[in-house]
Amino acid sequence: MEERGEKMVSSAQLASRCAINAGTVRKDLSYFGKFGVRGVGYYVKDLLYDIKQILGLSKEWRMAVIGIGNLGSSLLSYKDFLKQDYQIVAAFDIDPPKVIGRVSEKLGRPVEVLHIDRIKEVAKERKIEMGIITTPPSEAQNVANMLVEAEVRGILNFAPAQITVPKGYVVKDVFFTTILDNLAYLLSNI
Amino acid sequence: MEERGEKMVSSAQLASRCAINAGTVRKDLSYFGKFGVRGVGYYVKDLLYDIKQILGLSKEWRMAVIGIGNLGSSLLSYKDFLKQDYQIVAAFDIDPPKVIGRVSEKLGRPVEVLHIDRIKEVAKERKIEMGIITTPPSEAQNVANMLVEAEVRGILNFAPAQITVPKGYVVKDVFFTTILDNLAYLLSNI
Repeated sequence: MEERGEKMVSSAQLASRCAINAGTVRKDLSYFGKFGVRGVGYYVKDLLYDIKQILGLSKEWRMAVIGIGNLGSSLLSYKDFLKQDYQIVAAFDIDPPKVIGRVSEKLGRPVEVLHIDRIKEVAKERKIEMGIITTPPSEAQNVANMLVEAEVRGILNFAPAQITVPKGYVVKDVFFTTILDNLAYLLSNI
Repeated sequence: MEERGEKMVSSAQLASRCAINAGTVRKDLSYFGKFGVRGVGYYVKDLLYDIKQILGLSKEWRMAVIGIGNLGSSLLSYKDFLKQDYQIVAAFDIDPPKVIGRVSEKLGRPVEVLHIDRIKEVAKERKIEMGIITTPPSEAQNVANMLVEAEVRGILNFAPAQITVPKGYVVKDVFFTTILDNLAYLLSNI
């Protein structure tokens, strides 16, 4: 809306975009303070700024992808990251053939693939705050340990293995098979 | 465990694998009936069978991927699907250059990429029950409509757009940017 130059938005318009109801929009926002003008709506620019503040998106997050197989390569080329202040600033792998300098243009912005042994040094240098694990499951905990050692506090884990991290670190799992299991369960109980 | 020939498993062992506590394992299972032998544990084979029944995994789910870009190609080659009774049996795209018969061996099992216009016919023929949308967001609702028309009841939506389906159909969204926003929020509030 901001890109299109729209100045105001109502909770009903927001609700319709999110496929929820307007009351929920108003209630959810009210948890974080007072927004908008009663009976009028929200200033698009202000609301966007406030939501970014709430979500911790008022800054750029610098990320590394660890494990440059199919999924890792796919993430490197996932253009929607760029829109939202997420920057992949490093890529690591352990498999020598992949440590070849730069990935092909086809995979989007060129990102140098480095040997995983350099993770601590590079994380510090490039101020990396999030690590995306796309290794085989057997390597996930090892990689998580390296990220902790490098003080990378946020981990997005695509490897189907439970990993544990010390207090002060956060892991979000994205397990495709768990998501599919969930869909299968819902379909079995329609 | 079954593959390794293990016969019994305790709730403590299960809990440790899932990084939760043993009481939670017992409580969660108790929602679905009586499992295991008090003070002994669970028969691995029986528990696996029962959990598959609960989750609707006692059958093979036949899936189609729609949109064979980077992410779609990556899913076609995602080997962990195979383990869990999920079979990708069709791939669709609208972009003529991709409709070239078979995808390369590098992308895993060869799957013929078909033109999206054939989705209804092929879904019926191949008994497809789940559709995975990996198109650009602007196409997601159109593709969802085609899947509904083809009576494909489960949709896994990777395209960052809200889609709506009629009653009796199920959509699960997997939005990478939403997951990253969530991680960013958690990191901002450690």
